[in-house]
Amino acid sequence: MTDQTPGPVHPTSHATAALRPLPMTDMTFAPGGFLGGWQQRNADRSLPYCISQLDASGALDNLRRVTGEADGDYQNMWFADSDVYKTLEAAAWQLGRAPENAELRAFVDSAGALLAKAQDEDGYLNSHRMVVEPEKKWQDLHWSHELYCAGHLIQAAVAAARAGVGAELVTVARRFADLIVSRFGSVDDVDGHPEIETALVELYRVTGHRPYLDQARRFIDLRGHGLLNGDRFGSAYLQDHVPVRQADAVAGHVVRQLYLLAGVVDVAVETHDDELLDAAHRLWEDAFGAKTYVTGAQGSRHRDEAFGAPYELPSDRAYGETCAGIASFQWNWRMLLATGSAKYADEMERALYNVIAGSTAIDGTHFFYSNTLHLRTGHDGSHEDAPSQRLPWYSCACCPPNLARLLASLSGYAATASPGALQIHLYGQGELRTTVDGHPVHVAMRTEYPWDGKVELTVTTAAPMTLTLRIPGWSTDAQVDGTPVDGRYVHVRKDWSAGATVTLDLPMPARVVRPHPRIDAVRGCVALARGPLVYCLEQADLPDNVTLEDVRIVADAPITVVPGSPVTLTASGSVEPPASDELYPTHTTASHTGEPITLTATPYFLWGNRKPGPMRVWLPTPS
Amino acid sequence: MTDQTPGPVHPTSHATAALRPLPMTDMTFAPGGFLGGWQQRNADRSLPYCISQLDASGALDNLRRVTGEADGDYQNMWFADSDVYKTLEAAAWQLGRAPENAELRAFVDSAGALLAKAQDEDGYLNSHRMVVEPEKKWQDLHWSHELYCAGHLIQAAVAAARAGVGAELVTVARRFADLIVSRFGSVDDVDGHPEIETALVELYRVTGHRPYLDQARRFIDLRGHGLLNGDRFGSAYLQDHVPVRQADAVAGHVVRQLYLLAGVVDVAVETHDDELLDAAHRLWEDAFGAKTYVTGAQGSRHRDEAFGAPYELPSDRAYGETCAGIASFQWNWRMLLATGSAKYADEMERALYNVIAGSTAIDGTHFFYSNTLHLRTGHDGSHEDAPSQRLPWYSCACCPPNLARLLASLSGYAATASPGALQIHLYGQGELRTTVDGHPVHVAMRTEYPWDGKVELTVTTAAPMTLTLRIPGWSTDAQVDGTPVDGRYVHVRKDWSAGATVTLDLPMPARVVRPHPRIDAVRGCVALARGPLVYCLEQADLPDNVTLEDVRIVADAPITVVPGSPVTLTASGSVEPPASDELYPTHTTASHTGEPITLTATPYFLWGNRKPGPMRVWLPTPS
Repeated sequence: MTDQTPGPVHPTSHATAALRPLPMTDMTFAPGGFLGGWQQRNADRSLPYCISQLDASGALDNLRRVTGEADGDYQNMWFADSDVYKTLEAAAWQLGRAPENAELRAFVDSAGALLAKAQDEDGYLNSHRMVVEPEKKWQDLHWSHELYCAGHLIQAAVAAARAGVGAELVTVARRFADLIVSRFGSVDDVDGHPEIETALVELYRVTGHRPYLDQARRFIDLRGHGLLNGDRFGSAYLQDHVPVRQADAVAGHVVRQLYLLAGVVDVAVETHDDELLDAAHRLWEDAFGAKTYVTGAQGSRHRDEAFGAPYELPSDRAYGETCAGIASFQWNWRMLLATGSAKYADEMERALYNVIAGSTAIDGTHFFYSNTLHLRTGHDGSHEDAPSQRLPWYSCACCPPNLARLLASLSGYAATASPGALQIHLYGQGELRTTVDGHPVHVAMRTEYPWDGKVELTVTTAAPMTLTLRIPGWSTDAQVDGTPVDGRYVHVRKDWSAGATVTLDLPMPARVVRPHPRIDAVRGCVALARGPLVYCLEQADLPDNVTLEDVRIVADAPITVVPGSPVTLTASGSVEPPASDELYPTHTTASHTGEPITLTATPYFLWGNRKPGPMRVWLPTPS
Repeated sequence: MTDQTPGPVHPTSHATAALRPLPMTDMTFAPGGFLGGWQQRNADRSLPYCISQLDASGALDNLRRVTGEADGDYQNMWFADSDVYKTLEAAAWQLGRAPENAELRAFVDSAGALLAKAQDEDGYLNSHRMVVEPEKKWQDLHWSHELYCAGHLIQAAVAAARAGVGAELVTVARRFADLIVSRFGSVDDVDGHPEIETALVELYRVTGHRPYLDQARRFIDLRGHGLLNGDRFGSAYLQDHVPVRQADAVAGHVVRQLYLLAGVVDVAVETHDDELLDAAHRLWEDAFGAKTYVTGAQGSRHRDEAFGAPYELPSDRAYGETCAGIASFQWNWRMLLATGSAKYADEMERALYNVIAGSTAIDGTHFFYSNTLHLRTGHDGSHEDAPSQRLPWYSCACCPPNLARLLASLSGYAATASPGALQIHLYGQGELRTTVDGHPVHVAMRTEYPWDGKVELTVTTAAPMTLTLRIPGWSTDAQVDGTPVDGRYVHVRKDWSAGATVTLDLPMPARVVRPHPRIDAVRGCVALARGPLVYCLEQADLPDNVTLEDVRIVADAPITVVPGSPVTLTASGSVEPPASDELYPTHTTASHTGEPITLTATPYFLWGNRKPGPMRVWLPTPS
């Protein structure tokens, strides 16, 4: 998200932040580039598909049941309103980028009108409660998702405000937000699923209405005191086991934890609350120090969709929910703005190019909800929680519209500003038109990133300005204009008045990644990576008579980079079928040199786009 | 179970079986021995505790709500009747072993009277349906557990019949069984949770009433045709995805799968159905070839309490439900009887001494429901599904009374007979008084097993007889009377008329067990074992400043056996703290020789009995 509408920025926004986000529309990724192409696919395929699914799944009809425009039973999950809101948010961002889209505008207008009509006189809006259980309004926040859905409504409205579309949506959201402030200013209760916290801060940012911020802070500080009924999953599942100011470990349901932390950083920054920001730092260290997959995925347990213990990172049962990848991206964005530290942009990039990119098929209309790092031979893909292939939709459809809203706003995360400086965090073919200290700035970015690490930036601005370029954490031997650089950011000062070009060169050799020795699940294995991309080995690239599990990689032999789109990697390996069928032999299963084989690894994010079959990111080395 | 009452054996019982079970009371394990002591603890502590929990948990009150003797809301799980039945079964077996127990008899009598009073005129009995949802009787077998509960009622009655106690229980169970046969002889439906199948065969065995057997077979053959609504967990969870005759892999909820397979073998043997037995063989190969932990535990996934893919055997997220260990023991017992093959007794022994033994604390009143093989440093034990210590009870309390019924009948699984021969499968200090071909046989067994592998058997019988002794699969260099033997059974023929002694010597050096190379979760690790016992390393045996995860074992150095009770093992190891905090370094984490340390491993089944803390069965070797 950005903290700016296209109009005036509220003066208190990100008061203590190191970096200032830019209006989402300032950056335009070119459709011919990687990120721009991805955004285009989202606009052309995924977003229209999500809109059509709102009808197919019954999510819109639920709201029409409130207004009397539809009858029949309530359909889908009790929090399916959030599917509508996330799709609306995506549509708003997309209209901000490309306003001439009559169909999209018609969707935003008609959905906005439906919401206005469905909304109660007092501002309340939740189709499940209104249609199915009106007597339980606000009575079971532990499980009802009423404030969670409200949060997504508000996020949609914030997007609409910033994109200058859907005024009705803003009115609906503010009326609901006012009701929430009025009720929960005095009632001690919190929602089982965080989201309202960050949403209220964002609404404060676009409106300047302080009670929204205060209420967000109140929700954060009420959490962790056992207000929620943790019977069903335990209070840690809901992050209600400890106040966030005292927490030192991420826990429970991953998306809940990460959405909460986005709100925590928002509140910390807007209220100058160092204690709260410190808590976010501690939890970040825990999450990224011991509970994150090499793909940026988080969530080690299918049960409860939860974080595991430190270093509990099984490849085959990686949950790595798509929404968690998005939430991690959003949390890291807020940490980046708050601190200006490149490590947060590194995690945004890792998640973006791997777990998030991999969650959607190249057709734009099939999705993973969970993102495994190892699909075993013999895997039973009949369960929706661990399918063998991306599915067209899910009974809980939180992820596809979440992807749509992230992708529609992606260009807003590429760059930031600070006094006298412009920072580029994500590299992609495109063009940035913004202002720094009120001076117009134009940046043309030419790059084949992530396939190639060369980035050419042509910058034009009348005033002196520092151009700050992120050096990714994976990078070694980076150069700017032919000169080696070190550090995590390089600061370039040139005379930009007539335009000047800066060439950033990030060499992209293949690299062999090793796991921390406490990660039992991938002991004795290595992963291949290049630039921001993690690679994987698919059965599709092996002869039929070779079982993926029997492949070993020679980690110290050279890895060859094979140009193309995608860039693939080839490595030396061997095939070592089990010496015996015995499950627990006492004899030494002697190290033996198997049949040599050349292994072709493809980018993880592309796996499963050819034919279904086993895949693994972590490859065993010979025993 | 045995297939015999103390009275006449029905002539068709185990018609095609290789081995004949003995009446449960024929074998008496001495309370001073390992198995006898365990049975005694069960009788003195666990069983009375389970009985008290039937009141504390409200399970008995649910039945009293049917009769009007209690009011208030239904308590506990909707299948809590089965807790009552399993406890009754345990009490019946225990009374069979030691009839002079007035309290236990009073429990059996009063619970039997309560059940008789609660039972409907037509024979129906299920407190949840009768109290809470009478209109749904038989309407949702997918989830209702009505036949599952009926199965446990029948098992309790079978135990009562064989032990000669609780005649009322037998009447109640037969009335219900007759209703089931009458209804489901023509209605095509099956229960979501198998158990009725094996129960009906057992009831047929004690009554000779053929319709029970036919109905069991009908239930088995109706399964796998999509009669159940698999929406919630998928049809494989319920083993309804494929008819068992066509199945080639165990799948879904482990206890459901294994209870079904117990019934499958029962029906196959009683109806001479080789096709059905072949299916059991195929599924056994899959289960024990690729889906069983070294402790005998089964169930690799907390989610759905389910089998995983082949070789998906994570230590830290091992589910290994206690009931699954018991079910595996019972299935293997039936396979042993059907085939006479020692490999099934091996799996009984592995499960018994490890996952089953480990599930109960030494106090007899704390239990594990799931049985992990690795409790990590930093584990959050607040979830009931993966606690850090054994708990006094569970919201779903299936396991403790299941343990009670297994332990109360344990002596019935030690030996079998066939024409002219007596087989000993489980070794324990005690005494067997039985008949072979109608001739009385007396066997006195003296042994410190499993702490020591020497077993001295003194046999007395007038007629010629072969004494067959199982040589455990883990054993090497076994001797009988000082002579080396090979094969999995040794057959001893002596003149037993005046009594003769046979000495079996099973040397028990420590052994290093390695995992099949496809088990990713424990690559580069070894486990220690001795005799039937798997060992583990606990934080409790490490200095406070050493983190369990940093310990490496030198697998090729000698392992010392330290006599005692328990026998412990010491091994050479080293402490190798991570070289850096980096989660995914690209530099080689070079193999380095850490601080040497002497490791003390204790039997897995005893873990967590001193102080709570990390534990692991599989120990990494130096990288």
